[in-house]
Amino acid sequence: MKALEERILKDGIVYPGNVLKVGSFLNHQIDVSFMKEIGEEFFRLFHSEKITKVLTIETSGIPIACFVALCFGVPVLFAKKHQTKNLSDDCFSTEITSFTHGNTYQARIEKKFLTCDDTVLIVDDFLANGCALEGLIELVNLAGAKCVGCGIVIEKAFQDGGKRLRAEGIRIESLARITEMRDDGTLVFAE
Amino acid sequence: MKALEERILKDGIVYPGNVLKVGSFLNHQIDVSFMKEIGEEFFRLFHSEKITKVLTIETSGIPIACFVALCFGVPVLFAKKHQTKNLSDDCFSTEITSFTHGNTYQARIEKKFLTCDDTVLIVDDFLANGCALEGLIELVNLAGAKCVGCGIVIEKAFQDGGKRLRAEGIRIESLARITEMRDDGTLVFAE
Repeated sequence: MKALEERILKDGIVYPGNVLKVGSFLNHQIDVSFMKEIGEEFFRLFHSEKITKVLTIETSGIPIACFVALCFGVPVLFAKKHQTKNLSDDCFSTEITSFTHGNTYQARIEKKFLTCDDTVLIVDDFLANGCALEGLIELVNLAGAKCVGCGIVIEKAFQDGGKRLRAEGIRIESLARITEMRDDGTLVFAE
Repeated sequence: MKALEERILKDGIVYPGNVLKVGSFLNHQIDVSFMKEIGEEFFRLFHSEKITKVLTIETSGIPIACFVALCFGVPVLFAKKHQTKNLSDDCFSTEITSFTHGNTYQARIEKKFLTCDDTVLIVDDFLANGCALEGLIELVNLAGAKCVGCGIVIEKAFQDGGKRLRAEGIRIESLARITEMRDDGTLVFAE
């Protein structure tokens, strides 16, 4: 998605250690008009699938999921990273390791919101090592639901998550694929 | 908002201790078409204000904020509850106590995303004791920005947050105001 690559080049900030900050439009401040365009692009890519739910994980995936789900006319379901009084004990749960945040957490969804009758599109803001996506796919599998694929805004294609998941036969559509992040801040996108 | 009261009566679940669970449409699974209607209702209430940003706090306020912000044509900014590598050190920060989750946390926003030039509408899913809203108002004040008011989806009007904030002169617009939650599960709304 050309407009996304241009936006990343314009507003993204690269830090040493392959850190890309896009908090000005994607995951702290949110450009909602642009998120709506991103939602429409995922709808274009997956519109032939008869999905019943868009699944993501808190927090940054939620705005994207909302605009995709609006196009499909289906609900969003987001996995929770933190146990709260608002979550019942009757959950599907899986452990996810986050390299970004340097921790391990349980991702949970209430069983009543995901069943074997569901066909799910997973969306998230980033794909790097793939741990979060694998966790979400595991939750779909635990529910006996079907996953038609994953819509990713920014893939760090030089990390192995995308390659590994595609090798497992999972459809991954990334709107921007970064193949190289140089120490001088230069970003290279896949052709 | 009549449609919201009806939805709460239809899908909300009341638990002892004044707990109202609305995870089927508001804060776990999200009915995005309905969130869009809620966003439009807040736009109707606040449209005469020249706002530059919609402010909320992760996680449940984000879908609501997105649809409000889309109506106004402005960005969303959400305060973060958890320190992450994606957040710079140059933040406005305030401590918030959550009675729902039984903890205290720092709410943070990066300084560069909220300045004295901003006019802010705050939105959130629930208002009960008002601690989260007070924290968000404090962040607006720290930035020297202006707050035109707060849009709340569900106010537990039998708790004192709304009364206290209104007494301070803050405009609070709640789409559903619950005045009583009985142990038998009955909900009473304000006239």
